[in-house]
Amino acid sequence: MNYKKLGKILGKIMVMEAILMLAPLAVAFLYEEGIRNVLAFVIPIVVLTVVGVLLQIPKPDRNTLYQKEGFALTALVWVVMTLAGAIPPVINGDIPNYVDAWFEIMSGFTTTGASVVTDITAMSHSTLFWRSFSHWIGGMGILVFVLIFIPESDDGSSMHLLRAESPGPQVGKIVSKMKVTTRILYLIYLGMSVLEVIILMLDKPIPGYESEQLFFSLLATFGCAGTGGFGFIPGSMELFHPFSQYVMAIFLILYGCNFSLYYLLLIGKVKQIFKSEEVKAYFLILSAAVAFVFLSLVGRLEAFPQIYTTEEAFRHSLFQVASLMTTAGFTTSDYGTWPMLAKTTLIVAMFIGGMAGSTAGGIKISRIVIAMKGAYINVRKLINPRYVPKVKMEGKPLEEKTISDVFAFITLYFFILVAAIFLLSFDPSNGAVVQITSDSGSYEMQHGFFSNFSAALACISNVGPAFEAVGPYANYADYSAFSKIVLAMTMMLGRLEILPVFILFSPKTWKKV
Amino acid sequence: MNYKKLGKILGKIMVMEAILMLAPLAVAFLYEEGIRNVLAFVIPIVVLTVVGVLLQIPKPDRNTLYQKEGFALTALVWVVMTLAGAIPPVINGDIPNYVDAWFEIMSGFTTTGASVVTDITAMSHSTLFWRSFSHWIGGMGILVFVLIFIPESDDGSSMHLLRAESPGPQVGKIVSKMKVTTRILYLIYLGMSVLEVIILMLDKPIPGYESEQLFFSLLATFGCAGTGGFGFIPGSMELFHPFSQYVMAIFLILYGCNFSLYYLLLIGKVKQIFKSEEVKAYFLILSAAVAFVFLSLVGRLEAFPQIYTTEEAFRHSLFQVASLMTTAGFTTSDYGTWPMLAKTTLIVAMFIGGMAGSTAGGIKISRIVIAMKGAYINVRKLINPRYVPKVKMEGKPLEEKTISDVFAFITLYFFILVAAIFLLSFDPSNGAVVQITSDSGSYEMQHGFFSNFSAALACISNVGPAFEAVGPYANYADYSAFSKIVLAMTMMLGRLEILPVFILFSPKTWKKV
Repeated sequence: MNYKKLGKILGKIMVMEAILMLAPLAVAFLYEEGIRNVLAFVIPIVVLTVVGVLLQIPKPDRNTLYQKEGFALTALVWVVMTLAGAIPPVINGDIPNYVDAWFEIMSGFTTTGASVVTDITAMSHSTLFWRSFSHWIGGMGILVFVLIFIPESDDGSSMHLLRAESPGPQVGKIVSKMKVTTRILYLIYLGMSVLEVIILMLDKPIPGYESEQLFFSLLATFGCAGTGGFGFIPGSMELFHPFSQYVMAIFLILYGCNFSLYYLLLIGKVKQIFKSEEVKAYFLILSAAVAFVFLSLVGRLEAFPQIYTTEEAFRHSLFQVASLMTTAGFTTSDYGTWPMLAKTTLIVAMFIGGMAGSTAGGIKISRIVIAMKGAYINVRKLINPRYVPKVKMEGKPLEEKTISDVFAFITLYFFILVAAIFLLSFDPSNGAVVQITSDSGSYEMQHGFFSNFSAALACISNVGPAFEAVGPYANYADYSAFSKIVLAMTMMLGRLEILPVFILFSPKTWKKV
Repeated sequence: MNYKKLGKILGKIMVMEAILMLAPLAVAFLYEEGIRNVLAFVIPIVVLTVVGVLLQIPKPDRNTLYQKEGFALTALVWVVMTLAGAIPPVINGDIPNYVDAWFEIMSGFTTTGASVVTDITAMSHSTLFWRSFSHWIGGMGILVFVLIFIPESDDGSSMHLLRAESPGPQVGKIVSKMKVTTRILYLIYLGMSVLEVIILMLDKPIPGYESEQLFFSLLATFGCAGTGGFGFIPGSMELFHPFSQYVMAIFLILYGCNFSLYYLLLIGKVKQIFKSEEVKAYFLILSAAVAFVFLSLVGRLEAFPQIYTTEEAFRHSLFQVASLMTTAGFTTSDYGTWPMLAKTTLIVAMFIGGMAGSTAGGIKISRIVIAMKGAYINVRKLINPRYVPKVKMEGKPLEEKTISDVFAFITLYFFILVAAIFLLSFDPSNGAVVQITSDSGSYEMQHGFFSNFSAALACISNVGPAFEAVGPYANYADYSAFSKIVLAMTMMLGRLEILPVFILFSPKTWKKV
């Protein structure tokens, strides 16, 4: 184990987190939130800087990182980042319990958006900013961010780090041309975010929140870009005007796309985009899901009282599918009261997630496509044992190893889901009745199996809101500390795509070879 | 496609089904059930015999079957067997709707035990016998049964058929010594069944059903042996005395074991049994599950009112875990009202299932063990890329291909589960309130997501009863015909372990090469 090198990178990242915390600190000053809110950020900034600098002092004997070190470091960075990121809301009293705060910030950095906050109106602007900002940072990956903007020639090491942090089975394309490409991708990310803020500013302000338009546009954009989805006013995006809701839905769909597509767009290879199987599958699944939810809401497929106009039904269908499939988790209406077909479609979308190489979570479209092709190959081989697979993915032959890795990933994904559901079944809040007040009225919900099932799914897929007692108008506050830790770990497993976390916690990793 | 050979084997099996129907016919005579019940069996017997004999007339040009033909035939046989097996209850009026009857008999042959019958007391003895008898036949596999008792030297073909019908990833051991071994296994199955009937006869009769003891012992044994679980009196096994409940629980656990273990026992290789990793994992998971449910029911892990004495709590825990993990689905108490930990433990047990080579369904213990080892290998390879896996399973090196196939199977298992849940979400009964009367009293249950989720799981794992609106004291009657067909197909996919069904319905199978 190259501890010194590990410490050096970890130190850099801690300093970087300190720098990032200057943004919410500025917000605290801007809104004149008082000394406690200022200290809430100053204290961790000082601690992170001091420890971060100290960690960088020892000179590593070897400047490269092995694969296992890269993977373990990635997971370790996420643990440290979230442990430090949880300090501000504890100090300023917005989330006084440290486990709660850690859950919230893990939810932020992993772009989940599951919240333990019961009264969002009581939060300071600086905390609201920090939570949502963590979505924006976590979306593209904190390590990626640090590595590509720090000028140092350690491509050998950073490749492993990028590989561990970037979502999806095939990051070869990005990794090979690495630094330059990734830097361009981050700039695209930044550019799209700026564009979204500007467009959201064009809408008329929300009544009662006239002075907050820029602040809200920023936070909404952070949530969209990172596909995070923390709310910042009661009812998530319910109070936003239809224009903003449409804009956000479209941006969510765009953020759910593989970012290398935008790179292709920039260099003029538009044809290649339309040839991509993942693009086709993504828009096919998305359109089908919107259609099912819409038909369900207008009562064409199920008996359901017409509570929405046709336009509303379409808008909520588009928004909710876009939001849950890209695993953001923003809501415009209480989908918990929707008919079964609509709810089940959303559940399936939560499993699938966005494209590989996007900021979205879930199993990812490309894995679904590869698994389908793998199943096809297996059937063909049984039909004709001499069958030689000539199956391609994105124009390249699909290797056995890739298929096998995808099957392994999906299996582990479901195993972790089942394990998390089992661990949640110990929670004392099981069976409790929760009072929910939403745009559909006030009603009671029991914390049942569906709550735990959907909570575990919403966390491993980095969606956030789930169903029943942890639905869009409820929150995760009632879970015990143990359950919150389980769910936070589930989020991390989902965001880092399982293996890096296993490697961090494997004793073999830390043994001398 | 060797249609003539396919026809010949199919024909033989149809005649065999006709012969098997003589048993319920005898029951109809014995209980003097009248002409309609007699005709209910005589008509299909005549049809099956005539068509079966006609199909055997053309002489095949080639006496062997290719792998794809074997797999397709296996699935085809199951379709034909169930279509024919559904005729009697339609004729005698016990289940007048043909789709309902097909669902019921598919549930029987696949040893699921999910039922559409709302009033079990209204059923004739012959129908009750036929349903439960189909568990016994389906448990070991109808094709296996036919092939090993028909003297004909077509080992080449039958290997493919056995491979398609036997559960679990590694049937090599049985297949290699094939006919002789399999015949011995069937004799063990028969012997254990006879033993169970005798032991159940030792109990005192159920009050009010004194004259039925032999009949009930037979049906209970059929359900245990095949791990089917059709009930035949109200409340499943609730009215059985504790002695019988313990006996059944123990036999269920034994039927959930790989039958080649009993072969090892017979030839005196006892040591080998205790060395088996699958045996260890099976009893470990089983004991842990019983412990969790028991502690949950006596209120040690969850707040739960003491409704059972300690003995009752232990008995119901043992019985219910044994019943749901071996995927039989018999019940002794209303587990639908149990606390969340107990319910979730049962759900996890339903996923896992019994051992490979047993009559149980589910993913199977050996696949879970292999998947865990596969995940371990993947992590080790990332830690050290030069790592050469020396992982063994049951003393033999675990091949990459085996691991990859297991991951593929589990992925497809979950995909089919999700697809089935989605298709069930179209059902009109979603959201309906069902009145349930059980030993825990009378209460209302809404047909929610958990109903569909658990119904799909109970069908793919061949368990039968599920939760909520399709719980142990409810039934599948309220599902639409479409949903019933979906669930019946799900049962078949579960019983035949997916691929044979895909091959039957793949156009490539039926194309000339």
